[in-house]
This record gives sequence, C-alpha cells and structure tokens, in this order.
Amino acid sequence: RYGYFGRVTPEVVQLMFCNVSGCLTEGRIFLSVSGEDMVSVNTRDAMGIRMLKGEEVEVVLLTSREDPVTKSLAEKLAKRMGCEVMEVGEEPLNDLKLVVEKKKLEWKDVAYMGNDKPDVKCLNLAGLSAVPGDAPTVAINAAKYTCHKVGGLGAVREFAEHILLQKQKAKAQMKQDRIDNSSF
Amino acid sequence: RYGYFGRVTPEVVQLMFCNVSGCLTEGRIFLSVSGEDMVSVNTRDAMGIRMLKGEEVEVVLLTSREDPVTKSLAEKLAKRMGCEVMEVGEEPLNDLKLVVEKKKLEWKDVAYMGNDKPDVKCLNLAGLSAVPGDAPTVAINAAKYTCHKVGGLGAVREFAEHILLQKQKAKAQMKQDRIDNSSF
Amino acid sequence: RYGYFGRVTPEVVQLMFCNVSGCLTEGRIFLSVSGEDMVSVNTRDAMGIRMLKGEEVEVVLLTSREDPVTKSLAEKLAKRMGCEVMEVGEEPLNDLKLVVEKKKLEWKDVAYMGNDKPDVKCLNLAGLSAVPGDAPTVAINAAKYTCHKVGGLGAVREFAEHILLQKQKAKAQMKQDRIDNSSF
Amino acid sequence: RYGYFGRVTPEVVQLMFCNVSGCLTEGRIFLSVSGEDMVSVNTRDAMGIRMLKGEEVEVVLLTSREDPVTKSLAEKLAKRMGCEVMEVGEEPLNDLKLVVEKKKLEWKDVAYMGNDKPDVKCLNLAGLSAVPGDAPTVAINAAKYTCHKVGGLGAVREFAEHILLQKQKAKAQMKQDRIDNSSF
Repeated sequence: RYGYFGRVTPEVVQLMFCNVSGCLTEGRIFLSVSGEDMVSVNTRDAMGIRMLKGEEVEVVLLTSREDPVTKSLAEKLAKRMGCEVMEVGEEPLNDLKLVVEKKKLEWKDVAYMGNDKPDVKCLNLAGLSAVPGDAPTVAINAAKYTCHKVGGLGAVREFAEHILLQKQKAKAQMKQDRIDNSSF
Repeated sequence: RYGYFGRVTPEVVQLMFCNVSGCLTEGRIFLSVSGEDMVSVNTRDAMGIRMLKGEEVEVVLLTSREDPVTKSLAEKLAKRMGCEVMEVGEEPLNDLKLVVEKKKLEWKDVAYMGNDKPDVKCLNLAGLSAVPGDAPTVAINAAKYTCHKVGGLGAVREFAEHILLQKQKAKAQMKQDRIDNSSF
Repeated sequence: RYGYFGRVTPEVVQLMFCNVSGCLTEGRIFLSVSGEDMVSVNTRDAMGIRMLKGEEVEVVLLTSREDPVTKSLAEKLAKRMGCEVMEVGEEPLNDLKLVVEKKKLEWKDVAYMGNDKPDVKCLNLAGLSAVPGDAPTVAINAAKYTCHKVGGLGAVREFAEHILLQKQKAKAQMKQDRIDNSSF
Repeated sequence: RYGYFGRVTPEVVQLMFCNVSGCLTEGRIFLSVSGEDMVSVNTRDAMGIRMLKGEEVEVVLLTSREDPVTKSLAEKLAKRMGCEVMEVGEEPLNDLKLVVEKKKLEWKDVAYMGNDKPDVKCLNLAGLSAVPGDAPTVAINAAKYTCHKVGGLGAVREFAEHILLQKQKAKAQMKQDRIDNSSF
C-alpha cells in the first residue's frame, strides 16, 4: 500500500513492553526485617508513559515470576502508571509472542525495554529496543539503543522520547513515499 | 523613578514558584504494597528556601493535581519548609497568573523552578527560571538557567543562590543608576 | 593429573564469600526513630549470585557480629538470595578458614568480596578477590580486582561475571594442557 | 617541652565535632504522610568514627535546634555510632567554645566537619576542618579540606583518615624534633 517495497509503517511502534525491575525501578529493593519490601519509581518515567499513550502506543509493564517483590507491587504500579501489568516467566518471549500475535502485530511494531539476560531474545526481536545505561553488558549488546539515563531515574522516559521521535520520522517518511508514488 | 529607561527593579525577584516533584524532591516515589508513599527532600534545599525568605522573596511550592502522592504530602512539606503550598492543574500558568496579578507583580519579578513539559510556559515567562540538571530536554530548553545539581539534591539551593546573586547585582545597578542620574 | 606442574584447576573457584554490608548492600542503613532499620539490595546482584550457583560456585554471605542491622536482616536476605548466611567476627579469616578446611578446599579455590579493613586478610588470601569501586583505599589495595560498579548497585554482579570468565579461561587452559600432554 | 618554639602537638587532634545532617547523613530526609521521618547513614562512616576513637580522638555529633528530624533521631544515632550527641543553635560556635574550654583544649586541637553556612565560623577556627564534596560553596571556601566523597556516603570516613594521617605526621615530627634537640 505504501510503495512497492511493501513496507508497512516502519518503526511506527504500537505496543511497548517494559520490564519493571531495573527499568521502571532502579532494580533496588528496600528490605526491613518484618516490614514490606519497597521500590522506587520516577515521576519523569510516568510522564514518559503518559506521552506514549497520548501517541497511541500501548504500554504493558512486565514483572517476573522469579521476582516476588515486584509481583506484589504490580497492581499498585499499574494503577499509578495507568498501564496493564503482565507476569512473565524465565523466558519472556514465550509469554509475549502470544500477546503480539493476538494483537495482530509483528515484532517490528513492538518496542521492548529490558535490563538483563532474560530480556536478550526480546531485545533482539523487537523493532525498537533499549536498556538503561547501567544494564549488564549482555543486555547492552542485545539492545538497539542504550539509554544515557539509568534505571528508575529517567531511562523509560528517554526511551519513550526515542520511540516518539522514530515514530515521527517514520510518519514523515511514509508521507514522503506517498508523494513520491503519486508523482509518477 | 530609577532612570529615564523606566526600569523598575530589574530581576529583583519578589516571588518564587517551585515545583515540588522533581525539583524539591528527586521525582522519586518510594512505594510499598500497603504502606504510604514516601518522598525525600534535602536539608540544603530547605536552607536555600530560608535564605530566600530572609531576603524577602516569597516562596510558593507547587504540587500537581495529576500527581496524587505529593498532594498528600503537601501539608507536611509546607510545614517543614515554612512555605505556602498551592495545587496547580495540567497547565500551571492558568493558576499562577491569577496569583501574580493579585500580588500586583509582573512575570519579570517572578522566579520559576520546574522540571518537565507542563512547566515550559512558566519557565519561558518568568524573569528568572531554572531546571535541575537532570531535567528532560524540553524543560532545559525553556529554562533560563540549568542547575548543576539534580532535583532533590541541591538544585533548589543552587537556584536560590542564583536568585540572590541576581538580586544583589540588580540592586547595585539601581544604586549606580541613581548616582549616575544625580550626577547630571 | 593435569600436567607435571601438579596444577589443580587454577582459579576454578568453587566457593565465594561475600560481605553483605557494603558489597551486597550500599553500606547505607536507613534509620527512623522507632521503626526498623532498612537496607537496599539490587536485583542484578541477585541475578549474579544465581549465575554463580548455576556454574556450581557455592555462595556464602557474611554478616558481622559488630553490625547489628545486617544480622537481623540476614535470614530475609538469605532467603531472597537463596544463599547460606554466616556470621563472622572482627577478623573474618578466623571463622572462614574452618569452613575452607571443612570443605577440603584451598584458598586459591575461594573467591572473596569485601569492602573494608577487616576484609584485608581474606582479600589477600583468596584466589580471586574484589571490592566495590567505592571501597576505602585500604581494601582496594588488598583486592585483586576493583569493580567499576559500587556496592549495592551491581558490584556483586560484576565480580560474579569476572569469576565466571576466569573459570571459563581456566577450564580452556586445562583442556589445552591435557591436549599438550597427550601429544607427547 | 618539645623544642624552643613552644609548639605543643601540632595538629594532633583530640576532639572532633561532626555535623550529623549532610555529613553523617546525605542531608536527605525521607518523608511519608503519617509515618516517621527517616535518614540514612553509612557503615563506612561508622568505621571511620571507630578508627578515630581507637586513636584517642573523641567524636561529638552535632544536631541543630533548627532541624527537628535529626534531633529525634539523635539518640538512636548516638548509640549506633557510639558517640555523644550534642544539640547546637544557629551559631554552633557559641555552644562549642564552652566545650573546648571545659576540656582544656585549644581550637587547633579540634577537628570540625560541617556542610553549610552556619558551620563557617567553626570551619575557620578548627585546626583541621572539612566539608563533604557536595557542600555549598560558602562552606567549601571556609573548610581546610574538601572531601572527594559526598555526605552520607563516606565523607566522614575520608576526613577520619585525613585526621589520622595528620596525627601520624605530627607525631613523627615531634619525635624528630626531640632527636634534633637532644643532639645539640
């Protein structure tokens, strides 16, 4: 439809998966003997998520079955961020490919933010992918974009702005393509 | 009165608005499952606010209707910092212009500290304006001064010192103007 | 068995001791008047410990008799990290040499992570040893490896990766030695 | 007694005053709506204080009458650090000169660690004085030593090591002086 290369909306991300632990939080967990565990999130990241939703990018937060803290905090986070939260297993790809299929999307329409070994496959597959600046090397090597900001202190916001910029560029390109096509 | 340019007290700020979230705090919110949300503030910033009040600059802290945490903490913060706290909407300018008019001030007599997109208009309007060093680009571009310190760790103090220095300079200039005028 | 130098598995670490305070945590303790003390740990460090256990390196966390906070949190940490926790005195070596002997290991098969004066002897003895990047000079001088990451924010993970890399290298070397031997 | 210059133990500090807020803590206060305020201290700083006491330097922690949080935490901190805690007013010098006189010391035998405007006079007077690396300019200018570490994350430890090094040097000098004297 948009030119004879059959390209459909290059990098016009419509869905973003974001690991909670280490991306939305710092990866830090505050522990006291009898008290509840505590994590910290950032208002600038929350604003980034709101910006994505404003441009029709759906955001799904991921928590891990291995990581009991974030699991119990998931509902509270979901409410604060206004996102759906999904629990994934040791290999997130197994859970997420069902979601991507169900939504009739392809992986190139998906953005993924992770920060460690289990995220590697998804970081490789997604059209746009990022890790916080303080992620381990194994994750940095798999991601298409490494944030300057670290987890829990603006990395999600930075990636959100990156996604929106790519989306803008892709749209401008698509428009240009249509003009080029119609001028023949 | 002070010279034929009709200048009235250039940059002698009499009122400062300061966004709580991301300026006075780090923008971080600590969350636990059932517990109350927690934020952190800095004693050096508190000292900065005290220094401003000592030089007759009124300080008004701003919280956002969008940001439920800081709202519930507002009263506690107000008491600790010895400031008034005001709740603003998505576009703070709408709320603040009423205050500025009521106090019979002009925007050039106002200092504004913000840290994100909603603050852009106010950052542009205010006589002196600043963002913490870790603010998003959109806010940095609108502010007249970018602090070296980050939010919650001294940015407010740094801006307070900047305001007082400008005030001092402006006063010295006014004095000089009067001397120049009287020597004719 | 592996060549006439009698070398047995060079730097193939089988046991790692890791100081909790300042290595697994930042060394920070959060205090409130009547409340419980709180510390923070990092999910990436937890992943590092899991990686070590996956390669058959046993991990033992050390808490100090001098440091009452971490002691009371030890059990909770042990459970979260899936490690044994051991309490040591002012000179950890006295307690640890018994463990090393009992497990029929030599100190060159042991990795040690510490961060201050009391750790110096163990840092010197262990086959592989490390300190977080923010450790005091006295500890840095004794350690064989200084992490780029600081305590509580990835230092344990970094050392875990260092250990696993050394182990891989040592195994490759051993294999090579066997080939060399058999070719005579 | 030690040479005809009448010098008595140059820089052999016997007493150290240390501001709690901003030196022993980061200056950060964690606030929740109904909960208690919380601060964080560092185990490496606690070790620094223990090192000073081991070399017969008495350590007195200072809290401010202006700063209600630290006041209520003072007793808990005192116990943890094994130090006396003293409350001082807006000008700490007024309170401290009485202590120095009572102990029959001179200000050159005193070390002082502060981090803001009210500490300036004491920083100027004390034989050895320091501020954390993140202190405001007004305090940095008054201090004889600026730590590389910031408040709450090792600044007290760094200053403790600086004091002990000066003490060692001074003792070596005194010994040398005695040898020089006796060789005439």
